[in-house]
Amino acid sequence: MTELGSEVIVPHGVLERFCSAALSSRGVREDVREHVVRSLTETSLRGVDSHGLELLPHYVRALDSGRINPVPAYRFDETSPSTARLDADHTFGHAAGAEAMSRAVDLARASGTGAVAVFNSTHFGAAAYFAFIAARANMIGMSFTHADSLMLSYGGSRPFFGTNPICFAAPIEGEDPFCLDMATTRVSWNKVRRHREAGLRLPPGWACDDRGEPTSEPASAAALLPIGDYKGFGLAMIVEILCSLLTGAPNGRDILRMYADPIDQKRYLGHFFIAIDVARFEDVAIFKRRLRALIDAVRSEPPKSGDTPVMVPGDPEKRKLSRRLLEGIPISRAIFEEYRAIGGAIGFAWSGIA
Amino acid sequence: MTELGSEVIVPHGVLERFCSAALSSRGVREDVREHVVRSLTETSLRGVDSHGLELLPHYVRALDSGRINPVPAYRFDETSPSTARLDADHTFGHAAGAEAMSRAVDLARASGTGAVAVFNSTHFGAAAYFAFIAARANMIGMSFTHADSLMLSYGGSRPFFGTNPICFAAPIEGEDPFCLDMATTRVSWNKVRRHREAGLRLPPGWACDDRGEPTSEPASAAALLPIGDYKGFGLAMIVEILCSLLTGAPNGRDILRMYADPIDQKRYLGHFFIAIDVARFEDVAIFKRRLRALIDAVRSEPPKSGDTPVMVPGDPEKRKLSRRLLEGIPISRAIFEEYRAIGGAIGFAWSGIA
Repeated sequence: MTELGSEVIVPHGVLERFCSAALSSRGVREDVREHVVRSLTETSLRGVDSHGLELLPHYVRALDSGRINPVPAYRFDETSPSTARLDADHTFGHAAGAEAMSRAVDLARASGTGAVAVFNSTHFGAAAYFAFIAARANMIGMSFTHADSLMLSYGGSRPFFGTNPICFAAPIEGEDPFCLDMATTRVSWNKVRRHREAGLRLPPGWACDDRGEPTSEPASAAALLPIGDYKGFGLAMIVEILCSLLTGAPNGRDILRMYADPIDQKRYLGHFFIAIDVARFEDVAIFKRRLRALIDAVRSEPPKSGDTPVMVPGDPEKRKLSRRLLEGIPISRAIFEEYRAIGGAIGFAWSGIA
Repeated sequence: MTELGSEVIVPHGVLERFCSAALSSRGVREDVREHVVRSLTETSLRGVDSHGLELLPHYVRALDSGRINPVPAYRFDETSPSTARLDADHTFGHAAGAEAMSRAVDLARASGTGAVAVFNSTHFGAAAYFAFIAARANMIGMSFTHADSLMLSYGGSRPFFGTNPICFAAPIEGEDPFCLDMATTRVSWNKVRRHREAGLRLPPGWACDDRGEPTSEPASAAALLPIGDYKGFGLAMIVEILCSLLTGAPNGRDILRMYADPIDQKRYLGHFFIAIDVARFEDVAIFKRRLRALIDAVRSEPPKSGDTPVMVPGDPEKRKLSRRLLEGIPISRAIFEEYRAIGGAIGFAWSGIA
């Protein structure tokens, strides 16, 4: 463990053990815990800090307050050879989502495709974690979740939908799966917040003020702008239809904020997962070779600027992953102080390194 | 039929009869013809002229040249309870796509979801036509097609993927289905061309020159920009994976251009269709009421500008549809001259109105 300015660099194995110990101390059942720990660690290793281990202190508070159920009684309802509904009983979305996607994969193995809707859930972290489950089973995986209201409505003056992400993964020959995991807003709220903290102005297209007018002033940012105007707004609405209307979850401005204070209320979130068995369309080895060739072709395209190659979605995360596996994961000093407080109270030993 | 400057306004019924007669004269089989006529007319009525009746002269040339097969031998291969592949035998994508989506709906009715991949196809017109088939059967419908290379690669200096559209439809209580049908580029090439013809500069974010640099000069536009930078690029890649890699269709820069000259070569296009049976997740009436309520809520959001209400995807098309059903469809003078030439050669009577 090394300190680097305002960050502490910690080996991922240490963080994994800490995360597991923290959740254990709150009585999180082993099967649930494993998914949360794996999702948070994998997500931080891939460089997506906003959806990774940074969130642990928040989740611990949500466990302590009773929002997140550490010992869920899952209720699966298999409604056809390719569809199911899952009542997540207010446990971690990471775990409920993984159970749902695993079920979608089973359905797809038996019937070609699988689609599973989840309700009574909580924040599920990074959507990629679930799509990877399908891709590693040689399937195409898609995962969706709605989120609390933050995206300016097209033509409107305030937010209605959330950053509602879309995620798609598929297996490649000789490489970790292809994965696109994107919010339907131009950037996340985190990026706006970091610009505010750093005293930087916002690039155009990121945010608007409380009358819906574009702003470059972080202090007056009230909502995020969708990608492609009505297109990103429409994509967010699709995600809302899949996650809320198929399940009866609240939608739009009725979704409880993640950081609402106090955090003792349940959020009743919905997610949606699709698995498509590649083998029902094409020999899996051929498909994986084709995706390999497509990715190689895109990466070989002439770049606009000599020193930055053309990349496919997921490439920046793969680079981060290689580096962070070797070098460790940077944790902000502020978050690490929270870790220390949690660890101190449960007697966690930081392997003598801090 | 009235003339209005450079446009001729024609009742949709007349255009429908003309379109049908033109296709009949080229030996297009009745089942194929019906889908093409319905798709082109419905699309023009919805105001999406670039994918509607405007294309008829092009299609007639593609029939005459042998690119499009008027009498296909469809070969369906049902590979699981929820999946199928369709060899379209180089007929109209409008017809092959409709057959594929109808099969997806049948599979979903029996098994919960249906996914059908189409290959050996041609241009399929508006993606909405197929998604509507599912939505009218009380299902969620999604349709995808790849297209010839036109979108600047993220970080690249030239196009690789096409405008690869994403389409999603769902049934609403008391109103035509919800439908988002969007290219993954900011605008279509048509819009750039029209700006060029009108001598207007291009708004930022639309196009780039042949070195990948943004341009507002229509004459130097060489490629279209994706929505949300890497996000639109990633979405286009997803569509390519579904349409090309699951089917063996060519991809990226290998796809033959729609307007390649001569147009006698086959295009070997791929499409992908998904139907999800709403009833397997929720009572259909409840789902439709929820979507009704969601849409009402969005439309009631405070607008940014007093005279333009907040709309949901598909609203502009619904307004156009109501008007054009009553007033007729505007056809440019240039296209109408082509209609007259085609009509003249087959003895089509313009109902005594021109």
